[in-house]
Amino acid sequence: MRQVVMIKPGTIEVEEREDPRILEPTDAIIRLKATCICGSDLWPYRGAEDVEHQVMGHEYVGVVEEIGSQVKTIKVGDFVVGSFWASDNTCEICQAGYHAYCVHRVLMGTIGTQSDKARIPLADGTLVATPGQPDEDLIPSLMAASDVLGTGWFAAVAAEAGPGKTVAVVGDGAVGLLAVLAARQLGAERIIAFSRHGDRQKLAREFGATDIIQERGAAGVAKVKELTAGLGAHSVIEAVGTQEAMMQAIHSTRPGGHVGFVGVSHDVAIPGDELFGAGVHIHGGPAPVRRFLPELIQLIWDRKINPGKVFDLTLPFDQAAEGYRAMDERRAIKVLLQLDDRP
Amino acid sequence: MRQVVMIKPGTIEVEEREDPRILEPTDAIIRLKATCICGSDLWPYRGAEDVEHQVMGHEYVGVVEEIGSQVKTIKVGDFVVGSFWASDNTCEICQAGYHAYCVHRVLMGTIGTQSDKARIPLADGTLVATPGQPDEDLIPSLMAASDVLGTGWFAAVAAEAGPGKTVAVVGDGAVGLLAVLAARQLGAERIIAFSRHGDRQKLAREFGATDIIQERGAAGVAKVKELTAGLGAHSVIEAVGTQEAMMQAIHSTRPGGHVGFVGVSHDVAIPGDELFGAGVHIHGGPAPVRRFLPELIQLIWDRKINPGKVFDLTLPFDQAAEGYRAMDERRAIKVLLQLDDRP
Repeated sequence: MRQVVMIKPGTIEVEEREDPRILEPTDAIIRLKATCICGSDLWPYRGAEDVEHQVMGHEYVGVVEEIGSQVKTIKVGDFVVGSFWASDNTCEICQAGYHAYCVHRVLMGTIGTQSDKARIPLADGTLVATPGQPDEDLIPSLMAASDVLGTGWFAAVAAEAGPGKTVAVVGDGAVGLLAVLAARQLGAERIIAFSRHGDRQKLAREFGATDIIQERGAAGVAKVKELTAGLGAHSVIEAVGTQEAMMQAIHSTRPGGHVGFVGVSHDVAIPGDELFGAGVHIHGGPAPVRRFLPELIQLIWDRKINPGKVFDLTLPFDQAAEGYRAMDERRAIKVLLQLDDRP
Repeated sequence: MRQVVMIKPGTIEVEEREDPRILEPTDAIIRLKATCICGSDLWPYRGAEDVEHQVMGHEYVGVVEEIGSQVKTIKVGDFVVGSFWASDNTCEICQAGYHAYCVHRVLMGTIGTQSDKARIPLADGTLVATPGQPDEDLIPSLMAASDVLGTGWFAAVAAEAGPGKTVAVVGDGAVGLLAVLAARQLGAERIIAFSRHGDRQKLAREFGATDIIQERGAAGVAKVKELTAGLGAHSVIEAVGTQEAMMQAIHSTRPGGHVGFVGVSHDVAIPGDELFGAGVHIHGGPAPVRRFLPELIQLIWDRKINPGKVFDLTLPFDQAAEGYRAMDERRAIKVLLQLDDRP
């Protein structure tokens, strides 16, 4: 099978690898229908994380080809969606809704799902089958559920977005944009998107943003205060991972309000005195996407949401390197890699 | 009247000052029944905060002597308890329960309540009258409600202590000990107190601690994990304000669990990647004590709790300097200053 490998920062190749095999009786093998490139893949691509000949990818949708002897609920032929942590869905931590910290978790990024096929550990816990074989046009949205939608949704839940609330979203990447969609679905009254890019502003408005703020940092915070009688937003989502974004989120939140953060933190340090002074709630980290998958799949299946719109560039799998370049240069919000070009 | 003044770090004097007067029609003047020294007063005392000829004190109980023309619910003769932020109790932030961030807030520490009398701004919002004139033995507990109990209670609420939860408390000062009491009242199943001091361990057990951990830092975290099947506590309270305490709290909490922090942060910086990795909720800051005062006063009035036990040294007001020394040298957990020695 083919698999995307990051040889070193900035260098992507598609390599031929052996097909995956069942290693544990709880594994499944899936043939991917599509895969995609994540904003977090850009951190190593840009040299901000060490990388050397690393298999890539942790988002996946596809059809089950084989199951281990202990797999009970997932069947061969099922169309399934999974997320970036394999999880058993039964341990105390999973039951509390924190599948990304399952006591048996396996990081899918170490397996790599920018590939024709993939081994999925803990298949019964990790995979959620769709109600049937999806129409072609639903694939991008189901793909989005695998990570960016689930992550944006978690951010909105962590920020306690809901009826009567003003929600601000820091970050206009795929996750930030889908956090806007999530806030809207969760019933937020007003949704402020921080964005300087016309195309992303447009998508933010389609997803439910009521206000756009172009300013960043202290000037951006001042604008949020202007829109909220000087108090700040009830709920603020941080979907970038930088110091500026985190502090912009904290300072945009009213005392007693909630910050939900899902940007993978890089060189962030939150000053204790500022956090003490702010009086906000902070919650975040790697999203427990699995918690939300059944609900998200149903919303997509019923065509109530269309998160697949974040894929503004679709390429054949063999052009993965061009996909990375397009996202790195911000020519694309998110890139879908088609896998049905080889049977 | 007499008033405690910190001349410079380490130097406390009792000075004669003019009696306070009504300045705003929403003010009240109270004659204090007792006052006390706060752990947070030790930061400037030890030179960790700038201080120069500063009036001290922000905890107070006493009898109303005079009210401004717009004060409606508080009457002359009422016995009242207030807290360290004066607040209107009506603005949107107060109504959300965050009185420490009231849009009209006044910091009582700038007025100073280690004194015979004090001016209380926003009296209707700030002060809560007791059901009648309290018995003498209830004074220390009502005094505790003014700050340390209210702060410990907020920390326990912020950490979502409750039935079925394992709660760990970092810090064995008055606030930490009363957070133990609060966790017990809120129904926590297991309460772990970090403490190395026999007398404080004893009080922690009296207040409801089920386990004591002597270790700190990584060793302390490992002990919490041992006691919780490797997962960490559901709820952890940070009541110190140092980097070590904050990280000990974060790492002692299971993914999805809650950290409530009330230690006044000094040189704390929370690494974003560790917070991202931990997956915990964090909430804290200056406690909105006013939110809890009616409930806490009733519990004390009904003798269901006895938080006044944290006062293990009582001195005449004129010996305030000795009180500071005793707390600084950890000879006392918390010092009550008696004010009924001069009519």
